[in-house]
Amino acid sequence: MANKKITGRDLDFAKWYTDVVNAARLSRYSNVKGCIILEPNGYAIWENIQKNLDRMFKETGHKNVAMPMLIPENLMKKEGELIDGFAPEAAWVTMGGSKQLEERMCIRPTSETLFSDYYSDVVSSYRDLPLKYNQWCSVMRWEKETRPFLRSREFWWQEGHTIHETQAEAEKETRDMLGVYETFFRDYLAIPVISGRKTEKEKFAGAEYTLTIEALMYNGVSLQSGTSHYFGQKFSKAYDIKFLNRANEFEYAYQTSWGVSSRMIGALIMVHGDDDGLVLPPKIAPIQVRIIPIKLEPQVLEICKSYFEKLKAAGISVELDDNDQTSAGFKFAESEVLGVPARIEVGMRDLENGQITLSRRDTKEKVQISKDADIVTEIQALLSDIQDNLLARATKRRDEMTYEAKTFEEFADIMNKTPGFIKADWCGDPECEVRIKEIRGTKSRCILEGVKPLTDKCVVCGKTAKNLVLWGIQY
Amino acid sequence: MANKKITGRDLDFAKWYTDVVNAARLSRYSNVKGCIILEPNGYAIWENIQKNLDRMFKETGHKNVAMPMLIPENLMKKEGELIDGFAPEAAWVTMGGSKQLEERMCIRPTSETLFSDYYSDVVSSYRDLPLKYNQWCSVMRWEKETRPFLRSREFWWQEGHTIHETQAEAEKETRDMLGVYETFFRDYLAIPVISGRKTEKEKFAGAEYTLTIEALMYNGVSLQSGTSHYFGQKFSKAYDIKFLNRANEFEYAYQTSWGVSSRMIGALIMVHGDDDGLVLPPKIAPIQVRIIPIKLEPQVLEICKSYFEKLKAAGISVELDDNDQTSAGFKFAESEVLGVPARIEVGMRDLENGQITLSRRDTKEKVQISKDADIVTEIQALLSDIQDNLLARATKRRDEMTYEAKTFEEFADIMNKTPGFIKADWCGDPECEVRIKEIRGTKSRCILEGVKPLTDKCVVCGKTAKNLVLWGIQY
Repeated sequence: MANKKITGRDLDFAKWYTDVVNAARLSRYSNVKGCIILEPNGYAIWENIQKNLDRMFKETGHKNVAMPMLIPENLMKKEGELIDGFAPEAAWVTMGGSKQLEERMCIRPTSETLFSDYYSDVVSSYRDLPLKYNQWCSVMRWEKETRPFLRSREFWWQEGHTIHETQAEAEKETRDMLGVYETFFRDYLAIPVISGRKTEKEKFAGAEYTLTIEALMYNGVSLQSGTSHYFGQKFSKAYDIKFLNRANEFEYAYQTSWGVSSRMIGALIMVHGDDDGLVLPPKIAPIQVRIIPIKLEPQVLEICKSYFEKLKAAGISVELDDNDQTSAGFKFAESEVLGVPARIEVGMRDLENGQITLSRRDTKEKVQISKDADIVTEIQALLSDIQDNLLARATKRRDEMTYEAKTFEEFADIMNKTPGFIKADWCGDPECEVRIKEIRGTKSRCILEGVKPLTDKCVVCGKTAKNLVLWGIQY
Repeated sequence: MANKKITGRDLDFAKWYTDVVNAARLSRYSNVKGCIILEPNGYAIWENIQKNLDRMFKETGHKNVAMPMLIPENLMKKEGELIDGFAPEAAWVTMGGSKQLEERMCIRPTSETLFSDYYSDVVSSYRDLPLKYNQWCSVMRWEKETRPFLRSREFWWQEGHTIHETQAEAEKETRDMLGVYETFFRDYLAIPVISGRKTEKEKFAGAEYTLTIEALMYNGVSLQSGTSHYFGQKFSKAYDIKFLNRANEFEYAYQTSWGVSSRMIGALIMVHGDDDGLVLPPKIAPIQVRIIPIKLEPQVLEICKSYFEKLKAAGISVELDDNDQTSAGFKFAESEVLGVPARIEVGMRDLENGQITLSRRDTKEKVQISKDADIVTEIQALLSDIQDNLLARATKRRDEMTYEAKTFEEFADIMNKTPGFIKADWCGDPECEVRIKEIRGTKSRCILEGVKPLTDKCVVCGKTAKNLVLWGIQY
C-alpha cells in the first residue's frame, strides 16, 4: 500500500524523488532562487553523516579549521586553471555597506586558494609538515538548473586540504582519504561504490589527478559521490608555498584536497528509497526505532514506555509515538515515509497473547516476538540485519546493472534500453569521450585502475585500448 | 616566569590579548580584509562550545536546520527596522557568474528574514506550533574595525528562531534561552554573567525587547555575551505568518530569536587568561591533561603511557607529549600557553621516590602524589577543583569591580579611575544615556529587573529614577 503523496518510483523517477524529499520534509526550496533549506529531518541526517565522518577524519590525524567565506578576485586568480573552472559560476560581492569595493570578492566555490594562502604564511620548514586540515561549511556555485541535494547553488560539504613534505606522502593521503570515503559509504550509508581515476577531461580544475567514488542510483543513473585530488606542486608554485627540506634546500610543498557533500543525502534517497518513502540505513538514521502503541490503553503505554527506556539506555535512537491526535495507521505510514529502520508495534490483542510485533522498513516484513523478550538484543540484531541487507540489496542491484560493451553499437544499445554502469575500453583520446556523450549524455565515470582492457580496441574508434573505463549517465 | 612572546597583561591589555591569540595559535588574520581564520586550536574550543550548547538546545526541544546564506534585498526590506539596522554593514552580491543580478542579495548578517519567510510557508494552524529551530553558521557584517573573536566581518555563531501560538509561550522561550546561556557560561565557561533587559536604544533592531547576558573582562571592560529577543508579532505581520488559532480565527504568530557567537572565545581569553597565555576551564578545554615525561627514559615513558591509557579510557581528553625534539621546559611553557588545565610531570628523581607531580594551570601550584595513586580519581578531582576555582576567581573579581554610583560625578570618577560595572539609577530618558556616553564611551549594559533603584533620582538628570541600570565600557 503505497503512500498517496508519492508517485511510483517506476512510474516517474524524477517526480518520485521530489515527492520523497517533500513527504519526508527533508528540504524545501527557499525564496532565494536555486538555494534550498535543510529542514530538521534533512539536517538530522546531515548531522549523523558529519558526526561519523568527522570521527573518521580525526582518527586519521586531521584537524578542523574555518577559513573565510570570501575570496578576493586576485587571490582566486593566482592559479589559472582553477579560476577558469570556477569563475563562470561564482557569486561576486561588489559592495560592502553602501560602498563599492576596490576589489570584488567571490563567495567560496571551493577553498584551495584560501588554504594555499594560509599555508604560504605558516609553512617554512619540513618540521611544519604535514598539515592535515579540514573544514565543514557551505559553498556557492551559481548553477542554472537545480535539484534538492543533487545540485543547488549553495550546498553543504567538507573540504579537506593537506600539505606534505614529499610527493609520496601526498599521494598516499589522496588514496587514503578516498579509502575513508569508500569505507564510510559501505559501512554507514550502505552504498557500494566503484572507485577509480577521472580522465583528464573530467578531473578537477587545477589537479594533477582526481580520484573518485561513483555510485549507481536505482534508475541506472550514476552519481559522482566523493573526490580526492592530488595537486602535486601546482598550488604551492602558484601561491609560493616553499619549505626548507631535510637537505636544507627550499622546495615547493605537495598538496591534496578531498570532499563529500550534502549530495550524499540524495544518494541515500535514490539508492534505498521505495514507493513508501525514505529507507534509511540504521547507522545513519536520526531515529532508528519508533514504538507505536496501536491503542493508547494504559497497559499498552506502560510496556511501550519500558521498551523506550531500555532502548534509550542502550544508546539506540528511539521515539515513542504516543500522539493522541493520529491513528496507528497514520503513524505507521509516517514512520515509513521518514525511513525509520525498525518499528515496534504494541496492540491489545497481541499483548493478550503475550506478543508484540517488530516491523522492518527495508523488506516490510513483520515478526511477532514474546513481549518479555530482551528488547535491546532483539532490536540490535534487527538493526544490524537491516544495515547488512541494505548493502547487499544495493550491491546486487548495482552488479545487475553493470554491463560490459565491446562495440559502440552494443554500448549504445545497452545505454538506451537499460542504463547503468558500462565497462568499456578506451584509447585515451578525449575525442572518443565526446563521441560517447552523444549516447544520452554518457560520460566517463572513472578509469578502472589495476585491471586490463576487455579487448585490445577502443569501443569508439577501434584504436589500441589503453584503459578499461567505467561509463554512465550522470546527475 | 612569564612567556616571552606575551606582553604583560597589566602592561598593555590590548597587546596582551593579541599576543595570547597568536601564541596559542587560536586564529590569525587572513588576506581577506577583516576576516579571520579559526586555526585548529581556536576551532577545537569552538567545537567544544558547539557540542555542549547543542546538547542543551536539543534537551530543551530545539532542532537544527540550515537556511540559505543569501537574502534578496526585497525580502530583507520587509521589516523596516531590521533593514535600517543592518543595511549599512551588509555585504552585497550583485553578480552571478558574468551576469548582473536582477536583484542584489546580501550575505546574511542574521537570519530573521529567512526564518520568517520559511515560517510563513509552513505554518497554517496552531497544530503546527511551536517550531523551535536553530542553525550553526557564519554571518557577515561589514565592520570597519576588527579584533579577533571580538569583532570581525565574518564570525561564527548559532541563531535560534522560534515561533509560537501565544505571547506567553514566546516570552517564556525568550527567558528560558537566556537561562540556558547563563547556565552554559557559569557551568562550562566558568564566567559569571549579569542578565537583564536592554534599553530601547540598545535593543536589537526589530525586537519588542532584548534580554542580554553581560560579562566583565579582566580589564574592567564589559562584553555583551549573548542576547535573546522577543519579537511579538512584528515579523509575523511583516512576513504574513498567520495561523488558525484554537478559536478558529486567523492570528499572527509570536516569535523569538537568540544567539551566542565565537566572541565567547574572546571572553574566555579575557576573563581567565594570564601572563603565560590561555587558561581554559576543564569543561571546555580541547586538551584537559597533558602528560610530560621530564626525561625520555624507558621507565618514565612506561608509566606515562599507562597514565595516558587510564585517563583516555575514563573519557578524559589527554595528550602525551613525548616529542624528542623539545625539552621539558619547552613542553611546560607550551602547555601553559595553550591553557591546558592540568599537567602530569614524570621525572626520574621523583620516580625514585615513588612520586609524580601534578601541576595546575589556574594557580600554577604543583603537588606531588604517589606514582601508584589512582590517577583517574586524582585528575578528576583536580579538574573539578580547577573548574570551580576559575568560576570563583572570576566571580570575586567581577564583584570587586562592580560599583554603585549615586551621582554623575561619582560615576565619572569611578569609570575614569577603576573601570568596571557600575550600577546607577536612570530615569528612562535616552538623552541621559547619551550624556553617560561622554564618560569613556560608557553605555547601558542592561536594566536590572526585579530590583529597586538605589535612590529616587536619575544619576544624570536628577529626575525620578525608573530603573536600576548596569553600565559599562563596551567591546
